[in-house]
Amino acid sequence: MGKMQNFENLKKEAAEKAVEFVKPGMVLGLGTGSTAKYATLRIGELIRDGKLENILAIPTSDRTAELAAEVNIPLTDLVKNPKIDITIDGADEIEPSLNVIKGGGGAHLREKLVAQSSKKMIVVADESKLSDKLGEKWAVPVEVLKIAVETESIFLKSIGAEIKMRKNENDENFITDLGNFIIDADFGVIENPYQLAGKMNSRAGIVEQGLFLDLVGIVIIAGKDGVRILEKK
Amino acid sequence: MGKMQNFENLKKEAAEKAVEFVKPGMVLGLGTGSTAKYATLRIGELIRDGKLENILAIPTSDRTAELAAEVNIPLTDLVKNPKIDITIDGADEIEPSLNVIKGGGGAHLREKLVAQSSKKMIVVADESKLSDKLGEKWAVPVEVLKIAVETESIFLKSIGAEIKMRKNENDENFITDLGNFIIDADFGVIENPYQLAGKMNSRAGIVEQGLFLDLVGIVIIAGKDGVRILEKK
Repeated sequence: MGKMQNFENLKKEAAEKAVEFVKPGMVLGLGTGSTAKYATLRIGELIRDGKLENILAIPTSDRTAELAAEVNIPLTDLVKNPKIDITIDGADEIEPSLNVIKGGGGAHLREKLVAQSSKKMIVVADESKLSDKLGEKWAVPVEVLKIAVETESIFLKSIGAEIKMRKNENDENFITDLGNFIIDADFGVIENPYQLAGKMNSRAGIVEQGLFLDLVGIVIIAGKDGVRILEKK
Repeated sequence: MGKMQNFENLKKEAAEKAVEFVKPGMVLGLGTGSTAKYATLRIGELIRDGKLENILAIPTSDRTAELAAEVNIPLTDLVKNPKIDITIDGADEIEPSLNVIKGGGGAHLREKLVAQSSKKMIVVADESKLSDKLGEKWAVPVEVLKIAVETESIFLKSIGAEIKMRKNENDENFITDLGNFIIDADFGVIENPYQLAGKMNSRAGIVEQGLFLDLVGIVIIAGKDGVRILEKK
């Protein structure tokens, strides 16, 4: 078995470990990304085999909605079911107190909506996502209104960010589901993510930023030495 | 002269007092409302009479944009001109340290964008808008994503609000320029507006709330005893 193949197996194992927290009758949030997709597939398997009944799921992206529909997971939304029991999602960067950065896929608004409505959020990821501090490896994705792209660029630079407009594959500005732009704001190592989040959150024009603070309860990591579980203290 | 007529004259006087701060070459934010409209009219007058040159203005609403165009004020936007010298706008409730509630017209997102990009924000209002503390007279308008209306209703109630969906004249849910709903969140008297704003700002799904804190530099009040000026200490 090649290394890549083996690594995919570990990601699958991590996702399946997360699914062990899921019980019949739950409302679930379904994340997006290369590890989270295995959780969706596993939930579909358990439903098919009659081992998991009365599940309703809210996808965090159109891609996940399609995958969930393919494996016959009944879908709902946050208007019909505003309270979620468990969400399983990926993350781009994870630090030891389980604060994370998300938004590499440009869907962190919908992802944060689902996360903040969840009793328990479980992040599944491979070990390349672990950092000592947020910002070591990843810029903070900042979704901004089109009309505010200049004012918020100026603002982000004024609080120390190097900024880059998120582009699509045609090198045009990336447009989110809600019709906004994304600015990737590189603050370097973030010493105080709460303070930084507070500053960005207070701005009209910033629709949502990718710091997920105190939202994650459990992280399940796939690494070369196997799968390990980190719990919020 | 009737009382009403007299009161309109005072509002006009307050607005014209605000316009005295405007100098040639400035970029202006133009507010909306029954007092702010007199400022727009006055600026148009000064431009017409050759007393105010090289003005560019950013309206906070479509209504104001129309009025400004009628009186030949050159318009721009926050992408072309992200730095505003002076904004003159109204407010729904004003307390002594010049924190205010806005959003009665449902445009507080655009209004806050303009306010936070302004070197100086001047609020013009009649004295009925004054309170000892915010929340005495006015609920906080909270613009929410449609998909988040249930989760954010639950959230607002959990932090102590009595909530009401904003309706239009046909008793349908009011829709903002950006396609969102407005929840009017009545917290009663707000003892700590900073804390309350922080809680709401941290929520994905809340696009913008109507507490304008530390944004207003000068308030010009039209009252039955004349016009007075309050300055931020």
